[in-house]
Amino acid sequence: MPAAAIILAAGLGTRMRSALPKALHPVAGRPMINHLVSACEQVFDRIVVVVGPGMPALEKAVAPHATVVQADRLGTGHAARMAAPLLRAFDGDVAVLYADNPLIPEPTIRRLMARRREGGLALLAMRPADPGRYGRVLQDAAGDVARVVEWADATEAERATGLCNAGVVCAPAHDLFRWLDALRNDNAKGEYYLTDIVAMAVGEGKRVLAEEAAEADLAGANDRAELARLEAVLQARLRAAAMAGGATLVAPETVFLASDTRLGQDVTIGPNVVFGPGVVVEDGVEIRAFSHLEGCVVRSGAVIGPFARLRPGTEVGRDAHVGNFVELKAATLAEGAKANHLSYLGDVTVGARANIGAGTITCNYDGINKHRTEIGAGAFIGSDTALVAPVRVGDRALVAAGSVITEDVPDDALAIARGRQATKPGRGVKGKRSDDRRAEGPAGLNRPAKHKGL
Amino acid sequence: MPAAAIILAAGLGTRMRSALPKALHPVAGRPMINHLVSACEQVFDRIVVVVGPGMPALEKAVAPHATVVQADRLGTGHAARMAAPLLRAFDGDVAVLYADNPLIPEPTIRRLMARRREGGLALLAMRPADPGRYGRVLQDAAGDVARVVEWADATEAERATGLCNAGVVCAPAHDLFRWLDALRNDNAKGEYYLTDIVAMAVGEGKRVLAEEAAEADLAGANDRAELARLEAVLQARLRAAAMAGGATLVAPETVFLASDTRLGQDVTIGPNVVFGPGVVVEDGVEIRAFSHLEGCVVRSGAVIGPFARLRPGTEVGRDAHVGNFVELKAATLAEGAKANHLSYLGDVTVGARANIGAGTITCNYDGINKHRTEIGAGAFIGSDTALVAPVRVGDRALVAAGSVITEDVPDDALAIARGRQATKPGRGVKGKRSDDRRAEGPAGLNRPAKHKGL
Amino acid sequence: MPAAAIILAAGLGTRMRSALPKALHPVAGRPMINHLVSACEQVFDRIVVVVGPGMPALEKAVAPHATVVQADRLGTGHAARMAAPLLRAFDGDVAVLYADNPLIPEPTIRRLMARRREGGLALLAMRPADPGRYGRVLQDAAGDVARVVEWADATEAERATGLCNAGVVCAPAHDLFRWLDALRNDNAKGEYYLTDIVAMAVGEGKRVLAEEAAEADLAGANDRAELARLEAVLQARLRAAAMAGGATLVAPETVFLASDTRLGQDVTIGPNVVFGPGVVVEDGVEIRAFSHLEGCVVRSGAVIGPFARLRPGTEVGRDAHVGNFVELKAATLAEGAKANHLSYLGDVTVGARANIGAGTITCNYDGINKHRTEIGAGAFIGSDTALVAPVRVGDRALVAAGSVITEDVPDDALAIARGRQATKPGRGVKGKRSDDRRAEGPAGLNRPAKHKGL
Repeated sequence: MPAAAIILAAGLGTRMRSALPKALHPVAGRPMINHLVSACEQVFDRIVVVVGPGMPALEKAVAPHATVVQADRLGTGHAARMAAPLLRAFDGDVAVLYADNPLIPEPTIRRLMARRREGGLALLAMRPADPGRYGRVLQDAAGDVARVVEWADATEAERATGLCNAGVVCAPAHDLFRWLDALRNDNAKGEYYLTDIVAMAVGEGKRVLAEEAAEADLAGANDRAELARLEAVLQARLRAAAMAGGATLVAPETVFLASDTRLGQDVTIGPNVVFGPGVVVEDGVEIRAFSHLEGCVVRSGAVIGPFARLRPGTEVGRDAHVGNFVELKAATLAEGAKANHLSYLGDVTVGARANIGAGTITCNYDGINKHRTEIGAGAFIGSDTALVAPVRVGDRALVAAGSVITEDVPDDALAIARGRQATKPGRGVKGKRSDDRRAEGPAGLNRPAKHKGL
Repeated sequence: MPAAAIILAAGLGTRMRSALPKALHPVAGRPMINHLVSACEQVFDRIVVVVGPGMPALEKAVAPHATVVQADRLGTGHAARMAAPLLRAFDGDVAVLYADNPLIPEPTIRRLMARRREGGLALLAMRPADPGRYGRVLQDAAGDVARVVEWADATEAERATGLCNAGVVCAPAHDLFRWLDALRNDNAKGEYYLTDIVAMAVGEGKRVLAEEAAEADLAGANDRAELARLEAVLQARLRAAAMAGGATLVAPETVFLASDTRLGQDVTIGPNVVFGPGVVVEDGVEIRAFSHLEGCVVRSGAVIGPFARLRPGTEVGRDAHVGNFVELKAATLAEGAKANHLSYLGDVTVGARANIGAGTITCNYDGINKHRTEIGAGAFIGSDTALVAPVRVGDRALVAAGSVITEDVPDDALAIARGRQATKPGRGVKGKRSDDRRAEGPAGLNRPAKHKGL
Repeated sequence: MPAAAIILAAGLGTRMRSALPKALHPVAGRPMINHLVSACEQVFDRIVVVVGPGMPALEKAVAPHATVVQADRLGTGHAARMAAPLLRAFDGDVAVLYADNPLIPEPTIRRLMARRREGGLALLAMRPADPGRYGRVLQDAAGDVARVVEWADATEAERATGLCNAGVVCAPAHDLFRWLDALRNDNAKGEYYLTDIVAMAVGEGKRVLAEEAAEADLAGANDRAELARLEAVLQARLRAAAMAGGATLVAPETVFLASDTRLGQDVTIGPNVVFGPGVVVEDGVEIRAFSHLEGCVVRSGAVIGPFARLRPGTEVGRDAHVGNFVELKAATLAEGAKANHLSYLGDVTVGARANIGAGTITCNYDGINKHRTEIGAGAFIGSDTALVAPVRVGDRALVAAGSVITEDVPDDALAIARGRQATKPGRGVKGKRSDDRRAEGPAGLNRPAKHKGL
């Protein structure tokens, strides 16, 4: 049977104290709405997102899915009804979900859908460690849902049941919108509550069934502390999956993954490693502490870090090494290449087994355009070298330490580009009183002279 | 009514295994005594700190508040009595607090003071998760304190009451010192216990009232593990306040704040960020992972890190960017300036929209004095450049990559200061046996020659 | 009485999803088997490790201890019996331990040995928070072990006893091997279970005694998530010991120690510090956030970090400072020396009170060999300097900022080695349309020209 989802995402998230609509706050680097949309795309044929007025960024984030605007904030039932023009005639089941419960796993949604097919209406329920003021789901002897009662209206006995309403429902479209049309707002807040459809369904003699889900899977975010807990829930999932897949996380609680991080077998991740989106790490790679990777591929056997930063467009080849205080951006390092110390390699291709000395800087930007640097296989770039792009250093070429390379270096050539050393006896640190030195600079270097400052 | 505080801070903290008096061990980068003194300053008209002999650093830390020395360690009652010369004639309430319970919140102290005014003596009590060997506060039917009983002297039934004595008391000065004078030390340890004044007050028919406080707010530190827990309690408070104020902390447990850190709305803090004292971050700033900030201001819309270090005296302007492996010290970056890669900018002023290339180093120290570098608006500093201060690069000036700039560069001028490149065909990496190379260096570079080493 | 240990280490660790034998997976940077072997070396006269076929790396890791190969995986009893050729005639007690329970503390092993001497067989038991499906140890009225029953065979009442079998046993060699020889595999899995010797001992009227151990001390690792928990258990121990010894760990949960890390009194460790093996830190040192140390000595009063990396062979002298984005490798810094910013110091000796400017790079590698740099006492190395090794900078010598030093600098001399500055008015950033600039480069710098790229 075809299925559609209505995602309620109109919330401003006042308690977030933010200019950003709540649904756009990111978890694992990605707006929370997109986590839910991704899960829904696996299950539903159509998705309609209910947004608030003036949320173009949210509409863009969920494109190409349809959006409808809830102009007035009149409750969850009212919000869901906004999707009626698009879904009233839909020939199938419609589920209503919430942008701020973005971590519902796809299998949980599928179980809800299956449960719906056992009756006329299905809802998600949970048994929170602290049930607090959640509405309680009351079941009859057969286990069917008899009633959902708000906490304020519940007796002590009803409150003592731990089964709580998560708010997520699923019903055939024609029933759902019929019930939504019939909702009344004669309550204290004057709002239309989605949950009231449960009583309607029961009143019509439909079976209403509750599907239980884990509390963490239904975690929501109404403020930034809860947002941090959502992040923690998702990170715990991602870390567990990474370890189950054969990666060692020395201190999993200090590793931050993206939803799409791919880690091979026998990958070792040290403490304090952060993955942005789009990272693929092949088998046997070691990523040492304090590394930060995004949008890159790391081939088998490579060693990264500590203190390495790999930025988008980077590929580190087999058995290559990237060491401390090294930044790679749009950099391709071939097999066995090494860049181990304090370097910036941007828009660069490094050949196999080339060695990049400490303090190498690719000068890839001239203020208007970025230019590429090519370094050949087996080349040796001496330390503290600037490579002014566009420039090519040939295969097996040598660049002397301290050079500023502005012209191409042919294969097998040596290039040197540095000043000559002049040594002046007796002009060192010693021998001057400090107030002399303040006047003249260290060791008699008059100021202002070309050697002022040291 | 005027109020005074006696803070007991004479403890050596033997279990700290430290040369530092216990009260000076820092929490969130600040001696624990100063946290308590700051809270007390909000509540009390006078503060007297009881220190041990030979603790000049502690006396200095609490200045200008008065200190008295407890020469002999004869118990808490004896310590409090040391303040008698300064406070016996004080016309108001006097509270006794402990330097090693430094996180008592100001409202808790105020509640204690208010409670005192309901009777003759007030004390702070708590219900710890593990009451252990704390003394128990026993209440009568009306809820007044009947007795405080040491754990060793308590019956099982008394121990089963979870209300524990936190040791903090408050009474009118004339009563307090009268009771302190009457304390006896005929107990196992031969000490004068402050808690014994409770029995005196009850014996005189005074109402004694217990004000309950949260266990975490009364956390103490007798060893380094407890000190770490104090830090955790304070950090949890600071993180919760930051999130409540509208900042996103992606992984709050990895962010370390100072008591005075100020974070604007819609600030995003990535994992693993450390704030020293004196940081102000305006709205909409993003601080990425592995950044370390102290004594600096970051204006709206700026992006910091990952791997950035901002040191005291730094101001990062609106929409400016500071990237990886960049250190700023006494640096002012105007709006939209960028310093994104491996740079040291010390004692520097950078104009609006200026671009600082990768590997830029300000040479600000000549061994005696620090000198300033000025970089004009819209200037472009090529990568791998040294700027030898004092020096000025003008507005819209260009500095070529790899330069060592020792003279001012006028507005709109270009400066180049680097060696010329010499390229020598066939002298690259290839073609020599390794033992030849050991003798001559790579590719026949004789040693010692001016190009030895690469 | 002499004592021997059999360590069962033949496990492949299928659930690890690894090419590495389970026993070689590291905890605190060291294969788990080595933690157990180290503890056993304190207690036992002989150690025999039972390995699987084709595990030469494991045999090497435990050398010089004897290994025997269990060719077929027929159960724990079968594995232990593999040691018979080496230990059957051993005149003393033999304990059987497991490579994947590597954190058993030496005192626990000693308690097991002592307990054995009270009877004929001793085993380790524990009371896990979640006893789950562990076999239960059933005791008679006197507290002796009556039986060990597998969970599957246990009654509800037996399961309700929380005392669980940890699998570790100790008995006289002649009894142990006699029992092992008599084991049968007529069970569901067709394996020989070590635990079955308990029934044999009881059947012979021997006293069997259980020694209780803490669950965490018996933590095992069958998959990577459990491996991470082992790491957490060990780190918690190491952190607690460091704090008890007088070091402040501001956020202990973010500090990663090696088993051999030695921290002096009044050492302060900031958040996010990682110690590899072989680090000695003397009294009063401060190690700031985001530092990474291995194989180094840090003398009293030194300050390290933030963002410092100390690699093997490094010694940082008294009161010396190593700052951000600084890497030291085989570097010796004498008292009071300073290297505070963005530097790579490899194979270098720095004299007392020498100052190493920001951006200093030692060019220690010529592609074949490493060469040393010597910097004299009181020398001043200007910022952004390359030191091309082998090279010596004398005592109190000055090196001008931006220099590439290729020749020795005598004591008290000044060396300058940089290009001269040329300044060209009007050739700055301004005045060109961007499409002109794309053609010519910024400010009319034709391409390809020697100043192309900036």
